[in-house]
Amino acid sequence: MTDIERINELAEKYFTAENKKEIEEELKKLLLPNSAGLAQINPKAGDIEYNSKKIVEYINFAQNIGLDLVVFPELIMSGFPLENSIENHPIIANECVKWLNEIAKITTKITAFVGFVEPCEDKFYDSVAVLNGGKITDIIRRKSLPNNSEFNDFNCITPFESLNNMITVNGIKYGILIGEDYRNTEQNADVIVNICAATTKIKNEQIKHSFMSSLAQKYSVPFVYVNQAGATDRASFDGTSRVFDKDGKLFACAKSFEEQFLIVNPVKNLGKIYPSVMLSNNDNQSQFSLDYEPDMERTYKTLIQGIKDYFGKTGFRRAVLGLSGGLDSTVCAVLLTDALGNENVFGVSMPSKITSQTSKDDAQVLAQNLGIGFTVAPIKDMFDTTNNCLQNLFADVEKHWDNRYKQSFTADNIQARSRAMFLWGVSNEFGSCLPIATSDKSEAYMGYATINGDMSGGFAPIADITKTKLFALARWLNKNREQKNAIPQSVIEKRPGAELAIDPKTNKPLIAEDALMPYEFLDEVIWRIENKKENYNIMINSEFLYEKSHSVTREQKTIWLDKFYRRMATALYKKSIMPPFVIVDSPSYNSKQLITSCGINYKCVEEKEIEQKIQQWL
Amino acid sequence: MTDIERINELAEKYFTAENKKEIEEELKKLLLPNSAGLAQINPKAGDIEYNSKKIVEYINFAQNIGLDLVVFPELIMSGFPLENSIENHPIIANECVKWLNEIAKITTKITAFVGFVEPCEDKFYDSVAVLNGGKITDIIRRKSLPNNSEFNDFNCITPFESLNNMITVNGIKYGILIGEDYRNTEQNADVIVNICAATTKIKNEQIKHSFMSSLAQKYSVPFVYVNQAGATDRASFDGTSRVFDKDGKLFACAKSFEEQFLIVNPVKNLGKIYPSVMLSNNDNQSQFSLDYEPDMERTYKTLIQGIKDYFGKTGFRRAVLGLSGGLDSTVCAVLLTDALGNENVFGVSMPSKITSQTSKDDAQVLAQNLGIGFTVAPIKDMFDTTNNCLQNLFADVEKHWDNRYKQSFTADNIQARSRAMFLWGVSNEFGSCLPIATSDKSEAYMGYATINGDMSGGFAPIADITKTKLFALARWLNKNREQKNAIPQSVIEKRPGAELAIDPKTNKPLIAEDALMPYEFLDEVIWRIENKKENYNIMINSEFLYEKSHSVTREQKTIWLDKFYRRMATALYKKSIMPPFVIVDSPSYNSKQLITSCGINYKCVEEKEIEQKIQQWL
Repeated sequence: MTDIERINELAEKYFTAENKKEIEEELKKLLLPNSAGLAQINPKAGDIEYNSKKIVEYINFAQNIGLDLVVFPELIMSGFPLENSIENHPIIANECVKWLNEIAKITTKITAFVGFVEPCEDKFYDSVAVLNGGKITDIIRRKSLPNNSEFNDFNCITPFESLNNMITVNGIKYGILIGEDYRNTEQNADVIVNICAATTKIKNEQIKHSFMSSLAQKYSVPFVYVNQAGATDRASFDGTSRVFDKDGKLFACAKSFEEQFLIVNPVKNLGKIYPSVMLSNNDNQSQFSLDYEPDMERTYKTLIQGIKDYFGKTGFRRAVLGLSGGLDSTVCAVLLTDALGNENVFGVSMPSKITSQTSKDDAQVLAQNLGIGFTVAPIKDMFDTTNNCLQNLFADVEKHWDNRYKQSFTADNIQARSRAMFLWGVSNEFGSCLPIATSDKSEAYMGYATINGDMSGGFAPIADITKTKLFALARWLNKNREQKNAIPQSVIEKRPGAELAIDPKTNKPLIAEDALMPYEFLDEVIWRIENKKENYNIMINSEFLYEKSHSVTREQKTIWLDKFYRRMATALYKKSIMPPFVIVDSPSYNSKQLITSCGINYKCVEEKEIEQKIQQWL
Repeated sequence: MTDIERINELAEKYFTAENKKEIEEELKKLLLPNSAGLAQINPKAGDIEYNSKKIVEYINFAQNIGLDLVVFPELIMSGFPLENSIENHPIIANECVKWLNEIAKITTKITAFVGFVEPCEDKFYDSVAVLNGGKITDIIRRKSLPNNSEFNDFNCITPFESLNNMITVNGIKYGILIGEDYRNTEQNADVIVNICAATTKIKNEQIKHSFMSSLAQKYSVPFVYVNQAGATDRASFDGTSRVFDKDGKLFACAKSFEEQFLIVNPVKNLGKIYPSVMLSNNDNQSQFSLDYEPDMERTYKTLIQGIKDYFGKTGFRRAVLGLSGGLDSTVCAVLLTDALGNENVFGVSMPSKITSQTSKDDAQVLAQNLGIGFTVAPIKDMFDTTNNCLQNLFADVEKHWDNRYKQSFTADNIQARSRAMFLWGVSNEFGSCLPIATSDKSEAYMGYATINGDMSGGFAPIADITKTKLFALARWLNKNREQKNAIPQSVIEKRPGAELAIDPKTNKPLIAEDALMPYEFLDEVIWRIENKKENYNIMINSEFLYEKSHSVTREQKTIWLDKFYRRMATALYKKSIMPPFVIVDSPSYNSKQLITSCGINYKCVEEKEIEQKIQQWL
């Protein structure tokens, strides 16, 4: 074991260790001059005291062992993102400064770079404070902001063209870059320090990695990247702080999706490369694929961090969910178990007369396998009472209104809403418990979920996972979790359906793909929109993966695409009230569309047709 | 009647008239050279064909009567805002160009300025096309974008430093300003044309008005402002297009909250000033006041436009709502009646055993007064069945989990959710019908509403109106609607309460103010946060209006403020899933706060206390 490996082994042990003094002594001996600590913190948005405590503990440790420098991520004091909070509550920024001034007092023998939101008259800056010698000695402000920012924070923050961003510590000139301020890269630095809060976006990871490496090469200086860990509502930060040498070669990399204090020596190229989810995957696809394997570990860790942090940061610890025996609720139950512990998860099987025996059995077997709480609560009484009451009400409404549907979804929805009544009841009756919405991304796009029913809940773990990816995840979980095959094989094998209605054609419960379209096709449409910004016309003329193994007529494809866009447009309302979830795949964090934009025509119109229409309007 | 008055009278009649040719002939004779039409359109976001039809009709009319110029608002072809739609569906921008090219063909004898989103490689510009002589002759791009934009659109749009924004039409040089691009004001223009899409924000209206007037004076040229009308989800545009002469004096002003084709002659100072809500009000308060009267008409029109456009643009026409006999549902029913017509509104009284006879009577009288559909649907059976089922379920959960509440809100919530079951049922069973969420802003801030209960629905008409303003609105409606006193006096006089629980202290239904705090105090806290960005410490040391008429101890005030901030933080989830509503008062359109930011400490912490905490952490 090299010294730097031993150093990081000790640093990992330190915070939970009892022999702190002993560890400090050993570290002091091992550390060379110009060593730095990269404090990859998981902050709580807006909770300055919580974040300050972490900052103080890391500075204190760093100082005790004689590090030159400790670097914290961008905006770490306030946490990031905050959305509009800074604007509405400028006290957050003012308090940052007060806390920083006090924290600075402890930096007697060390320098700390701390990201914070800086108030200045009626503006806010994305700044880094340099703490040293018991006070704030410098402040560096971010010079440019992204044009298409995914966070509202940047709407409140003003860029600032400062002249200098170079800080000298023990003879080494550190050029500070905040966020993606790359155009301002300091050319005369001995070390570039890139202070970030960057979300996990698999499609960009490799581009980002090579870009940082190329910057190190270009300026021929070591490049240090420090990133935030943890999830804040939808936004997920992967940490994975790292250091490149002046030739662009990686020599240090922190863990992904975890807090860590990584000790490196950027001047002497000393560091440890931890096995990293972000470095190992290679999911930079140029076309849609069902081979989700290379991205599964990142997906799983993003989901687990997302659940843990949403519950932890809002002060909840328990989840109650309906177990239908279907894929969605099954995968949710496994993820919740891994994130919260099986003692904190309760599954309720809520069968109706449509629910098959297999579904009931699968729900029970799953709960047993996971060791979570479980009971059966049939919805027959709820359905009957609600249906009775509604029939009376409908008779009254019908006296006043026409256009009563011959075939409505009312009965389907009563079932889904009765189940939600049960789950919200448990949440109201038992402390610290959130009900879970089990909608997946494919169905969210299609609006294939019931408002106040299965799409309602305090958190929606898989709302950004498409159905085909969910199947892959289920298989991966059965193979890769410590407990193998927790998910009954039949859950993975059966074709998904909500079991809310009987298909008159088959006299069996309706299969979702029959009501919608094949999931493989549906998920490729979503993938093409989100990743390629493709439109209807491009898609109709491209070959889909599904078409390689199935014969699909152009007529059939037209029907599916028409249905996709029609359903997507009318599902905009449902998407707007989807419970919180963590972004796993969507390229855009805040990808919202106005509900009244449902009139968008996603198909190109021919010039000739336009000309004719205009002539008619004259 | 002057010529210009007659001209506008004819223009108003034109589009629904049968004798179009006759009107055109008269107008041709009356119009002087350099006359222009300001086409204050209400677009549909993303519906390019719908918007193009309006554009074509206005251009055609303008050309037929011999106008020099017709001016359309900013981004009118795509509609504005679109949020992230342009980014995900660039086809919208591409189609704009195609449609514009075809529309240009009809501009043989006229010039048109048309706002559109312009695609250019991987960028988008906020542009104005100049159509003339059968083609697009010029494109002007917006040079700067707001730093703290309220719309995500501006995240996708790139500013562009074009050299020229001057267009000459019949010898007159028009300097084009897009949006709030004032710093680029063209100094050599004969007329400044400001092409906008500006939301109704009462606090800024007077500042904006004087600023435009001062620009006209400064450059000593007429200043023409063209704005969009209509509501798009939360965003409400008031139209009120206007023209100032070179001395800054207003000489033309279109109606507010309506589509209009206003004909003016900016060179000869000819125009008509229509009575305008935006010009007459003077609600530019520097402190909180209960005198809402000056802003009531604007409030009412914003709400009506918001309801009309949300329903109209999403293709719904009917609303069903619960009538509790309380203030919230009563005001909602009146607004819905005025916006949709009484034949399209259905009220359901859903009493429980707690519901008082007065409440039941008030609901019925209101429905009779308004002439809306009405029936009574008691929730006793729903409550009993749900409660029975839940007690069994809870007994099972209790075997697994501790921390069952002794006094939970479960029973209260069952009532609210049973009612929502009824309303969503009607929405599922009858065509074109949305259920209504009746939550008001004061209660939304406090989370004083039930998820999947009264806060669920397809639209929330009064979600941006505080309770004290709602009382004022109820009085105003009784006085100013054609049908006087539709709202029973007792609704306005009784103290609000949800009638979900009995107050053990009084043995009567719980009064909301007893559970929360006086609404007058609560609403001032909200007002101070939204308008003054004040924090806890400033508020505790300021005198509230409520304190002028009531003796409030500092201890009591502390209890209320603590409760406010505590409840506001835990209500962040509820606010995130609030149904769509139109912004009336909030200064920020997209004022969202992350749910996991509930740990924000809104109180200042003393330096000494910080120092002590830090010492403990070392």
